[in-house]
Amino acid sequence: MLSKNTVKFIKSLHQKKYRNLHGKFLVEGEKSVLEVLKSNFFVESLVGTQQFYQTHFEGLRNFQGNRFEVTQNQLETLGTFKSNKDALVVVDMPKSSSIQLDPNQLILALDNVKDPGNLGTIIRIADWYGIKNLLISEESAEIFNPRVIQSTMGSFTRIRWEYCDLRKKLSDYDGLIYGALLYGDNLHGRSLAKPGVLVMGNESRGISDEIESLVSDRITIPSFGQAESLNVAIATAVILDSFKRDLSG
Amino acid sequence: MLSKNTVKFIKSLHQKKYRNLHGKFLVEGEKSVLEVLKSNFFVESLVGTQQFYQTHFEGLRNFQGNRFEVTQNQLETLGTFKSNKDALVVVDMPKSSSIQLDPNQLILALDNVKDPGNLGTIIRIADWYGIKNLLISEESAEIFNPRVIQSTMGSFTRIRWEYCDLRKKLSDYDGLIYGALLYGDNLHGRSLAKPGVLVMGNESRGISDEIESLVSDRITIPSFGQAESLNVAIATAVILDSFKRDLSG
Repeated sequence: MLSKNTVKFIKSLHQKKYRNLHGKFLVEGEKSVLEVLKSNFFVESLVGTQQFYQTHFEGLRNFQGNRFEVTQNQLETLGTFKSNKDALVVVDMPKSSSIQLDPNQLILALDNVKDPGNLGTIIRIADWYGIKNLLISEESAEIFNPRVIQSTMGSFTRIRWEYCDLRKKLSDYDGLIYGALLYGDNLHGRSLAKPGVLVMGNESRGISDEIESLVSDRITIPSFGQAESLNVAIATAVILDSFKRDLSG
Repeated sequence: MLSKNTVKFIKSLHQKKYRNLHGKFLVEGEKSVLEVLKSNFFVESLVGTQQFYQTHFEGLRNFQGNRFEVTQNQLETLGTFKSNKDALVVVDMPKSSSIQLDPNQLILALDNVKDPGNLGTIIRIADWYGIKNLLISEESAEIFNPRVIQSTMGSFTRIRWEYCDLRKKLSDYDGLIYGALLYGDNLHGRSLAKPGVLVMGNESRGISDEIESLVSDRITIPSFGQAESLNVAIATAVILDSFKRDLSG
């Protein structure tokens, strides 16, 4: 049985203020919960339905934290998902990493990516393309926001990130800095055979002026139709795919 | 002033049943409303705030349909957006197109893409890459769903689509049929210099067996990390980008 206080505590983690206060965040849904349980993240509590515990009996054998069993209805009241017939977990926030910028490695940097769904999707894409390190500007969406966590589909467990003053961080770096910008080199016409930091900008304003001034290589995805823009997560995937094509070639 | 009946009518268009009954759908938000007003779609009614009418006074000069002025609050009650300080329009559904499959043209086909956000984003991507024609299987999301329309960012006005029995439609076609599938040719290792129909499948199950049996060229986006999959809209963008690189090269 969940005590009133535990219910209150879990619900408080819907809000950034309380996530930071307690240093904990929520992970919800079958796939993400299973991913975090097999990762190095410390899971304090598991709240699952009877069905979830039965289906994953073997896989949960080694789990040492608190276990609570609830109905689907109770689970949906506790968490942020409209529908969740499986589980949620309360997870310790990891210590923040400090990422060493290695000019021989492809690193992704997000300059003020505001939408939680975009941030989460970008993390999933980075994981697909084997990008290990992510710089995130301080004004960007918060990674522990439940919508970000949900959109990563478990990929947040495999990526290192650092929230930082992007301008400062990139000023100290002497490798290539690629930026997705208008009026840059046509992505289809140039080689991306050298790694570096790839900067992606804000959903409506793109890369900020102060970061743009640090960009050494402007990259533009060519358009063949009339849509005004591509979503930032889509653009990230298209450019990373090009890098991987050229870097591995 | 909006009559009670008009309010009721507009709200009824939130539901597919009434959209089909009346043959009308809603387009909401500044950008999308402006796009549809300059398109060939027939706009029956425009419901806007004072600010919207003032800002776009010149552009609205030629609009012949009904005009209503409402407060932002009223607008948000009428439509489906949480926040809308501009306008919505009631638009006639276009007659359904029948798309001629030309083997010299790159055409996109969606096999059971269920999520409205994905369908809308794919339409925006198609528009970016200059894809004019879209086949949509009958079980896919409905294009007039407000979330689809919103995600297209106006691109639905520039794409022709046909809801069809995809198996039947593709059976009669003798060009190449590309499918985004597991265990296909590595996208980075093969040329996509010949156009054809590109089939993208369902969010969780991929392309159905009956459509897969018609695919002549299996294409796989290589993975470099551990994410299990890419979202279908992301995958569509990556593959279309590759086509455009090779077709135009």
